[in-house]
Amino acid sequence: MSGLSFEPLTPTSFLERSATVFAQRLAVVDGELTLTYARLWERVRLLAGGLAGAGVRTGDRVGLLAANGHMMLEATFGVPAAGAIMVPLNIRLSPGELAYILDHAEVSVLLHDGEHAALARAASEASLSRPRLVGSGEGSEYEALLAGAEPLLVRVADELSPLSINYTSGTTGRPKGVVYHHRGAYLQALAMALHTRLDAASSYLWTLPMFHCHGWCFPWAVTLAGGRHVCLRKVDPEEAWRLIREHRVTHLCGAPTVLTSLLTHHDAPAAALDPRLLACVGGAPPSPVLLGRALRAGIDVIHLYGLTETYGPAVICQPQPEWSTLDVGELATLTARQGVGNVIAQRIRVVDEHGADVPADATTIGEIAVRGNDVMVGYHRDPAATDKAAPDGWFRTGDLGVLHPDGYVRLVDRAKDVIISGGENIASVEVENALVSHPAVQEAAVVARPDPHWGEVPVAYVSLAAGASVTGGELIEHVRSRLAHFKAPKAVFFGDLPKTSTGKIQKTVLRERAAG
Amino acid sequence: MSGLSFEPLTPTSFLERSATVFAQRLAVVDGELTLTYARLWERVRLLAGGLAGAGVRTGDRVGLLAANGHMMLEATFGVPAAGAIMVPLNIRLSPGELAYILDHAEVSVLLHDGEHAALARAASEASLSRPRLVGSGEGSEYEALLAGAEPLLVRVADELSPLSINYTSGTTGRPKGVVYHHRGAYLQALAMALHTRLDAASSYLWTLPMFHCHGWCFPWAVTLAGGRHVCLRKVDPEEAWRLIREHRVTHLCGAPTVLTSLLTHHDAPAAALDPRLLACVGGAPPSPVLLGRALRAGIDVIHLYGLTETYGPAVICQPQPEWSTLDVGELATLTARQGVGNVIAQRIRVVDEHGADVPADATTIGEIAVRGNDVMVGYHRDPAATDKAAPDGWFRTGDLGVLHPDGYVRLVDRAKDVIISGGENIASVEVENALVSHPAVQEAAVVARPDPHWGEVPVAYVSLAAGASVTGGELIEHVRSRLAHFKAPKAVFFGDLPKTSTGKIQKTVLRERAAG
Repeated sequence: MSGLSFEPLTPTSFLERSATVFAQRLAVVDGELTLTYARLWERVRLLAGGLAGAGVRTGDRVGLLAANGHMMLEATFGVPAAGAIMVPLNIRLSPGELAYILDHAEVSVLLHDGEHAALARAASEASLSRPRLVGSGEGSEYEALLAGAEPLLVRVADELSPLSINYTSGTTGRPKGVVYHHRGAYLQALAMALHTRLDAASSYLWTLPMFHCHGWCFPWAVTLAGGRHVCLRKVDPEEAWRLIREHRVTHLCGAPTVLTSLLTHHDAPAAALDPRLLACVGGAPPSPVLLGRALRAGIDVIHLYGLTETYGPAVICQPQPEWSTLDVGELATLTARQGVGNVIAQRIRVVDEHGADVPADATTIGEIAVRGNDVMVGYHRDPAATDKAAPDGWFRTGDLGVLHPDGYVRLVDRAKDVIISGGENIASVEVENALVSHPAVQEAAVVARPDPHWGEVPVAYVSLAAGASVTGGELIEHVRSRLAHFKAPKAVFFGDLPKTSTGKIQKTVLRERAAG
Repeated sequence: MSGLSFEPLTPTSFLERSATVFAQRLAVVDGELTLTYARLWERVRLLAGGLAGAGVRTGDRVGLLAANGHMMLEATFGVPAAGAIMVPLNIRLSPGELAYILDHAEVSVLLHDGEHAALARAASEASLSRPRLVGSGEGSEYEALLAGAEPLLVRVADELSPLSINYTSGTTGRPKGVVYHHRGAYLQALAMALHTRLDAASSYLWTLPMFHCHGWCFPWAVTLAGGRHVCLRKVDPEEAWRLIREHRVTHLCGAPTVLTSLLTHHDAPAAALDPRLLACVGGAPPSPVLLGRALRAGIDVIHLYGLTETYGPAVICQPQPEWSTLDVGELATLTARQGVGNVIAQRIRVVDEHGADVPADATTIGEIAVRGNDVMVGYHRDPAATDKAAPDGWFRTGDLGVLHPDGYVRLVDRAKDVIISGGENIASVEVENALVSHPAVQEAAVVARPDPHWGEVPVAYVSLAAGASVTGGELIEHVRSRLAHFKAPKAVFFGDLPKTSTGKIQKTVLRERAAG
């Protein structure tokens, strides 16, 4: 359907516009390779033509296995331009894990970069579907596919049709395929551009992997603004600072740990950056220490919250103009909250076990529930899991939170991260906050250890700030001085914390370590 | 329809969000009256309840006859919250003209402000439908309606259902009722907020009448950003400057003449405003003189273009970052173009008489054609006129333009404003630009006068800059020094120019004057 007053919403249209309006502006920087918006659009349509020539038909699934780079951006627009559905893959998965997804999504073509050729081959060999592999790089099959193709653009007939399938990290059981529709990505991209004030002068550093929640929809948000995509293949602080300075970077996204790794690096600026930079952090709240460091470096911080199931950040800790006058401690307290629905999201709810709203008293804990245009269509080939996750049409995030009187949600803990000790609930986040308030602590994770007497007890894993030292006993005392004694960790272990590709601490790994 | 991954788009949802997120921020300033976002939302739902209590049902039409003020804003959200359709009315129309619209739209309730009570009564008495009149103001029936009501919010079931019917000025024949749907206003509002960088610190001065193209969708755009609506009942430069200073205004919209009247007033600032102000001008391009004055006053100018049929500005002269380094003359040349589709609009076309695209050579003249989510559903109760205006599904604007190689459209003239003299086409805009380049000229309008020999000849109506003087002969000589001689006006008349409520020069009036 399409007509005088109706055109299906698809985020691919943003590139079509920018290819004209910002034709000669730099769209992509990927090492030595640069692409203007006009050239990006040309390559996107050639990729679409190449895929069609390789037998890809409307509704077919095309896998993407690559670090942040031009190929991921081209595929983000080119696969839909061929009428096909994207399946972005986490480059840290094992061949067996990837094979499961390839088979579950019935991927027929797998696009990969040169760096992940061996992984792609191993995954394909481990799969039943045996997708055709197309590797990118100079003189590659990918380039040959584009060189031999006619430009193609398949128009989207139904904005509610699938755009991509994003597999969850699957910390519990098999990964699930979260289906995004064109309409959702279109609206979410507009919301991200609006909230982060992207425009044609923006320069966006890709610290967040594009395969993660489709890069929180920033591939489309940056493109609709006509901004510059500056690709970073992995979070290397030295390279990041080089690119920030060379390309006058104005925006980046990631977990707070990503920002910490940048700001604690010796290349971090001594004075405030010019232009200022906006860092959108998610996965955990930015601590007061981090916020202070960031502001001194000329970096403003927005706290966002979401899941794979919500196209990334459905929730934003909406900054208020008055907050600019607060001191860092007050600002950190307000910014630590997850916040409110973004401008295109529906109201974020906190519900009890019967699905009723909890009071907005900042105290009553419930589960965060969402629905609307930026909530997934459902889990691919798993209607039972979809129904279970959204029993009454509201998706249950699995995150526990409270609702503040001003309408801002604060996440208390992941449901599965709550420690139940002697019948009392301990929010691991609360204990972690107490730990990181100690000046020697850089990061902390608290998990449950099985205990014959208490059922579970909290234990802490801690990494120290450079040059700092502290004993486990001192840290336990520090927590006891701030929280109820039963919430203090029974043991403290020092060392680096295991993290996911997006910089989130892997509590599953720590739980296994604690139990073992 | 509504569900896990789908919620109908309606601009009313923006106020619902801002009522929570920006609850205590000032939403409306209307003289002595101020409303927070929480209070505005409360009054909106009371208005909806009051309308329902007065018998207004889903799909009924409610007329709005008021200057910019709290009642217009409340109705913009409250009428849809009752499930009804708005019919904003031009306060400059005669009772007979209003009666035609009341009957054509079958308006059952007419909301008006105190200032327009007599006009509302006269219009109602002249109509067949005799709508119920509800006047606002202290101790009014409007306030009684709200005071006696239960809050109501009717959810929108279909985003393609009508939101408002906006009658054209009807310079040729009867006014036509342009139907907007919820989806279009929602998307257009997001586009306006994004392009003009509205946020919660924004303060928007209502120089544009809200009844005109529904205020270019800024009632929704400012609201979604959590900005402040500063109401101005008429364009009074002294009052405008007072409000700009008191409320630290950051945004306003209007015709270039509105900006000229502000900048030539003795209250205009001698130094650049702080904060800077963004003026969105439409209806005519900003001249180099105006642009220079604006920039010196700390006012940035964006040139927008649209019609009632396109929710206001479907087209934006998208500023490029490099333009900030240009001198005023170069900037004015680029900014004088109407530009490209806004971020949610479809590509703007320039088509020949067969509906084929003209080449992008900046020379070949065609008609500007649009379609997409921000193009009207059609003319109310006039399918024949809708079909005629969009013979192939692309709405013909009636404006003639050329397409530049960079994809920007430049309007050459209204089709009906072109002067055909001795078989040669003369674009009235071109002659006007030559006239205003003379330092003594403030504004100029050129129209056709019937001529027994040439068919038509151009004649000019000119208003002079304060304290300036020039003869008609000198101005004709000035034009002849810049354009082909046949384009120079055959006569020049001095005096104030007749204008519409939005500040557009009324060429129809001048044509009649020239012919008479």
